Amino acid sequence: MSENPLHLLMNPKSVAVAGASNTPTKMGSIQALSLLKDGYQGKVYFLHPKDKTIFGIGAYPSPRDLPEVPDLAFLVVPINAALTLLEEFGRIGTKRAIVVTAGFKETGAEGANLEKQLNEVAARYGIRFVGPNCLGIINSQICLNTTVYPFPPSDGLLGLASQSGTYVTQILPLSRKKGIKFSKAISLGNEANIDIADALEYLGEDEQTKAVILYIEGIRNGKKFLEIARKVTRRKPVLAQYVGGTVSGARAGMSHTGAMAGPDFLYDGMFKQAGIIRVGSIEELYDHGWTLATQPMLRGNRIGVMTNSGGPSSSISNTCDLVGLSVPRYSEKLQEQIRPYLQPHAASSNPVDLTFDTSMKNLAITIPEIILKSGEVDALISHGIMHSGFLREIYSHAVDFLGDISFEQFLEMAEPVLTETFEIPRKYNVPYLISTFFGQEDYYTKGFQEHNIPVFHSPEKAARAMGALYHYSLIKKRKPGKKVTLPKISPRAVNILKQARQNRQKALDEHTAKRLLAAYGVPVTKEILAKSLREALAAASKLGYPVALKACHWEIMHKSGKSLIALNIENATSLKKAFLDIRRAAGFFTPVLVQQMLSGGREFLAGMTRFAAFGPGVVFGLGGVFTEVYRDTTIRVAPLTDADAQEMLTDIRGKKLLDNFRGMPEVDKEKMIKILQAVGNIALLHPEIAEIDLNPIIIQKARPVVADALIVLKNGL
Amino acid sequence: MSENPLHLLMNPKSVAVAGASNTPTKMGSIQALSLLKDGYQGKVYFLHPKDKTIFGIGAYPSPRDLPEVPDLAFLVVPINAALTLLEEFGRIGTKRAIVVTAGFKETGAEGANLEKQLNEVAARYGIRFVGPNCLGIINSQICLNTTVYPFPPSDGLLGLASQSGTYVTQILPLSRKKGIKFSKAISLGNEANIDIADALEYLGEDEQTKAVILYIEGIRNGKKFLEIARKVTRRKPVLAQYVGGTVSGARAGMSHTGAMAGPDFLYDGMFKQAGIIRVGSIEELYDHGWTLATQPMLRGNRIGVMTNSGGPSSSISNTCDLVGLSVPRYSEKLQEQIRPYLQPHAASSNPVDLTFDTSMKNLAITIPEIILKSGEVDALISHGIMHSGFLREIYSHAVDFLGDISFEQFLEMAEPVLTETFEIPRKYNVPYLISTFFGQEDYYTKGFQEHNIPVFHSPEKAARAMGALYHYSLIKKRKPGKKVTLPKISPRAVNILKQARQNRQKALDEHTAKRLLAAYGVPVTKEILAKSLREALAAASKLGYPVALKACHWEIMHKSGKSLIALNIENATSLKKAFLDIRRAAGFFTPVLVQQMLSGGREFLAGMTRFAAFGPGVVFGLGGVFTEVYRDTTIRVAPLTDADAQEMLTDIRGKKLLDNFRGMPEVDKEKMIKILQAVGNIALLHPEIAEIDLNPIIIQKARPVVADALIVLKNGL
Repeated sequence: MSENPLHLLMNPKSVAVAGASNTPTKMGSIQALSLLKDGYQGKVYFLHPKDKTIFGIGAYPSPRDLPEVPDLAFLVVPINAALTLLEEFGRIGTKRAIVVTAGFKETGAEGANLEKQLNEVAARYGIRFVGPNCLGIINSQICLNTTVYPFPPSDGLLGLASQSGTYVTQILPLSRKKGIKFSKAISLGNEANIDIADALEYLGEDEQTKAVILYIEGIRNGKKFLEIARKVTRRKPVLAQYVGGTVSGARAGMSHTGAMAGPDFLYDGMFKQAGIIRVGSIEELYDHGWTLATQPMLRGNRIGVMTNSGGPSSSISNTCDLVGLSVPRYSEKLQEQIRPYLQPHAASSNPVDLTFDTSMKNLAITIPEIILKSGEVDALISHGIMHSGFLREIYSHAVDFLGDISFEQFLEMAEPVLTETFEIPRKYNVPYLISTFFGQEDYYTKGFQEHNIPVFHSPEKAARAMGALYHYSLIKKRKPGKKVTLPKISPRAVNILKQARQNRQKALDEHTAKRLLAAYGVPVTKEILAKSLREALAAASKLGYPVALKACHWEIMHKSGKSLIALNIENATSLKKAFLDIRRAAGFFTPVLVQQMLSGGREFLAGMTRFAAFGPGVVFGLGGVFTEVYRDTTIRVAPLTDADAQEMLTDIRGKKLLDNFRGMPEVDKEKMIKILQAVGNIALLHPEIAEIDLNPIIIQKARPVVADALIVLKNGL
Repeated sequence: MSENPLHLLMNPKSVAVAGASNTPTKMGSIQALSLLKDGYQGKVYFLHPKDKTIFGIGAYPSPRDLPEVPDLAFLVVPINAALTLLEEFGRIGTKRAIVVTAGFKETGAEGANLEKQLNEVAARYGIRFVGPNCLGIINSQICLNTTVYPFPPSDGLLGLASQSGTYVTQILPLSRKKGIKFSKAISLGNEANIDIADALEYLGEDEQTKAVILYIEGIRNGKKFLEIARKVTRRKPVLAQYVGGTVSGARAGMSHTGAMAGPDFLYDGMFKQAGIIRVGSIEELYDHGWTLATQPMLRGNRIGVMTNSGGPSSSISNTCDLVGLSVPRYSEKLQEQIRPYLQPHAASSNPVDLTFDTSMKNLAITIPEIILKSGEVDALISHGIMHSGFLREIYSHAVDFLGDISFEQFLEMAEPVLTETFEIPRKYNVPYLISTFFGQEDYYTKGFQEHNIPVFHSPEKAARAMGALYHYSLIKKRKPGKKVTLPKISPRAVNILKQARQNRQKALDEHTAKRLLAAYGVPVTKEILAKSLREALAAASKLGYPVALKACHWEIMHKSGKSLIALNIENATSLKKAFLDIRRAAGFFTPVLVQQMLSGGREFLAGMTRFAAFGPGVVFGLGGVFTEVYRDTTIRVAPLTDADAQEMLTDIRGKKLLDNFRGMPEVDKEKMIKILQAVGNIALLHPEIAEIDLNPIIIQKARPVVADALIVLKNGL
């Protein structure tokens, strides 16, 4: 168990609230009522400048007047009072706080300064706090709820950490309708002190929480987040929505929690690296999170589909295929067992479609049991189990002809809800997901929800949620990477960079960049720098024709389209002409690089860019001419484990190019992995490097060789 | 107005029902009750072998006993009775029928034969019918409902044609909760007679229907469908879900309606060609369909986002960007007008975030009006307008401290629902979509729905629905293509194919294939067929070095990797060697094609495959080495208009390659369009051609030239 500050914050024995009043429709009061009314057994105290009681409970003018030192201070006061009060709580020895108060970093420079002061006060007294600009927390285990909506006692399984308060609280009525129950939920606000990585760590350690969902507008400490996430995803599923990756998303996030967003593809790569399942909407975040929190591990990808209706069975089957699942045809033997329970000619091969049938026994119990006993599928999706919802529809039309009976009497005439239905998933220990067009007005919907069997109001959603289970089963199977040990810093590299700094260079020239790369084991083209035609001719003879010629100076960062490069030079005559052409374009004293001419049908790229909060990101992808056309790249945060780099190779659309391809041998993947790891390591060892761009990396037979390299240095070195 | 058979079928003055009984829980009876109880004003008659009345209405033993000839026969009888009864209705002169009865084509060969007989009976009497294996129809205009669920009178706007009955009927309770109302709905079943194209035509002509949604498992007459769809989408939005494009989806569809599915990418291309908006789930089909049915045309892509909460505002903004919309920053002037209504420091730049505020006036009326008056956005998305849903939450906690008041009294104390809110969208005539986590328990949700303002229970869904509006605005802006006139059939092509047939060839050799293509104006490489080394040397001299050599015989369909091809031959010496190598590999008498060696950095492909129900599909995409790696292709159904072919060029991911690219000029797109059109035309003129594969089409400077061609002939010619 870590020293995570949320252990105490989420489990206080006493809470002091500042900012509630006896007006029960003000925000602070509404939050205080949640604390009082949802079953929390700890002590609650109020602070109020004048009133002696609030909601019938004793109120005190100042923290020092409280009868005990509360574990948690809960502040919903104006911004200046928040600072003063935090200080006062610090003085009496309170170590945890939730600051709901808004108006800090999210409002600009002045607010950011106030937020800094808040943190300084906290540091002075060893206080750790959530917020500011948040809604607080829910801990279902001790019935603690500080949000504006009621949270009735429940045995939740889903843990949420959210940079939006709305997604902790305003969404509660909708979650209730869906049967989704939090174990713990944390509204993080501006994360001045406790951040989303802390919350993830805490939820990862929490026994009650079976899956963690994260709503993210921007991560402040990327390294910490990634390190914690890697650990948590080995133990339990973590899902995330990230909305800061577009221009509008980033602007909205900035004005909401002052979040520092990063590009979408960076987060995409980082989530993959961490083993986090990314979703595209808040609805999916909850739906898939709840599925992963409640369902056992999916053992394979074979899904059985049960319906009483062909549309949903086709929609589910189609969607299963699209998310990597399969809907296998049942064996003849199994179909023979199923057929007696079907209409003649009804589909028995998977999906099983019972067609219109008002008895639910076959759909809900008999056939599922036969299928699950067979072992031919790893999970079931069922659409069409219904009772009171359906009967209500029928009743409204038939009532006149049923004799004078009430709906309740009509329900009694019908088949009762078959409660065995709800036991089947646990009995066979497989994932079981329900699709229905009825809400809780239908007794089956309600029953499934009460048994933590997820219910979706759309066939495709059930199939996609099953896809999330499959996704996590793949994450669990990932090989853990070997711990990265950074290589020793190369004196040659240090010298190169020192020299460049002395020269006030903004970049290294190609040849020098390659020397630096080679110092870390990156394979580069054989090449010789020539300062004269004579040297160039000698170099070409030494390297052997054909060669390439390139103007080589740090100020020349991009060579193509400017007559600074000549390829496929076959002989001395051509070399002479090319040399002079390049000199003419680049200037008479520009050195010329004479380079072995590599040829190979396959070109890749590797690169490095630094990102705020995450540090260096290493990119791998398709290189050469098609780089800009397909933008087929993937990114991971450095340092890369061997497993990280390995996954990058299969994460590009053009991954086929790395295999035996049109007569060309499989690329030496170990070597490519080493290049990617080296790029990350170089970035970590040499913070003065701003960017690395290796493009193309040409595959010579099987071996990747860097044919062009650019290393950009940080400004102001 | 067309002679569409649904005009009468959907508007009968009288209906005769066969298959209902006085047991109100049987399927036929439930359907009959819908007919009786939902307000239909036409005459309803029953047929029954024994009973004299059904549900108190006169029943007759046979159609000939009916007091009048009903406009519509509705059959829910066993399969053999269906055949007999249809015949009897035919005899008395009934011209329309709905056959609910299942057990036909969807069950295999025997059922398919019965379905054929059904159609023969219909043809004999001039009957047009919907089904078999369907649930019938809903026509809200005349309160006609034959489905198993009630459909209360409503002024619907959305037309549905569905190959699943469930999506017409079982989904109704869910649609009601969402405020979605059908104008007309048709469950098509097996489409033995009236098909989805007829239904689309009918809904396209129907004045009440403002948008059409289609649920598709497989289209039986693709040409008819495409032709009708092209017309309808010019008048009103059409959306479709297609689920038959995967192995499992196709199998499920086959056993459901006997639908003949086709590959997903074919439908994808065909929908684009037709101007149909494709969706990925039944939920999106309804949600986006309802949005398009109710909202005015989106005039641009500038979206205003209004919330009282940062999470949804970030989620909406991010999703807007992802679907091609923009969330523009408001002008300083506009922000100044907005700020007085916001908390200090609250976001005013777009999104506007009011943060926690229990009064709805600013969020729902004041600020939207200011924004819409400014003209700075084309539409609004709003999250967080709430009333009774929210108050119910608050009340449950505050009740003890409010004095002894009921929830109703508490509601009265609160701000009333501001009904002006619902008038704003119409007043400014812009699309207006709502996100909220409350259902109809909230008065605002209910009010918006009653005013046909779509409500979504997720911020991202509202943004995606706005994306569908944007998508349709782009479809409306498409240039209509010129009508295609097929060229005159080429005598040379006819001769080539005749000869091949006489030789019992399965394909044309490359050279002959190119001669055929050239006869229709397709630019091909300059080349000469050589039967000897001497001829080859002469040919090379004539064409000029470098040349390519290829073994040329119809049995050699794929040349690469088999030593049957030699490229970049620079001189006579190399040619001799290459010629002999090829002869050694291909056989001594195999002719050798001597071809100008094209070089160009860009390679594309064009091709043709025939598809059941649709005929020839023309493919365009990235060619050469990367063909299999990126599978970057798009397809349209022949014949292609110039506009179809033009759209194909921009529909591939690698479209940048067609423009000025790395110093290469823009590809001559007119010429590429002509190649694509020619491929389609050749397929239509010469049905004996099974497949065409032109890969690569090399771009020489700007001009596309076919460098290799394969034409496969149909078997058994």
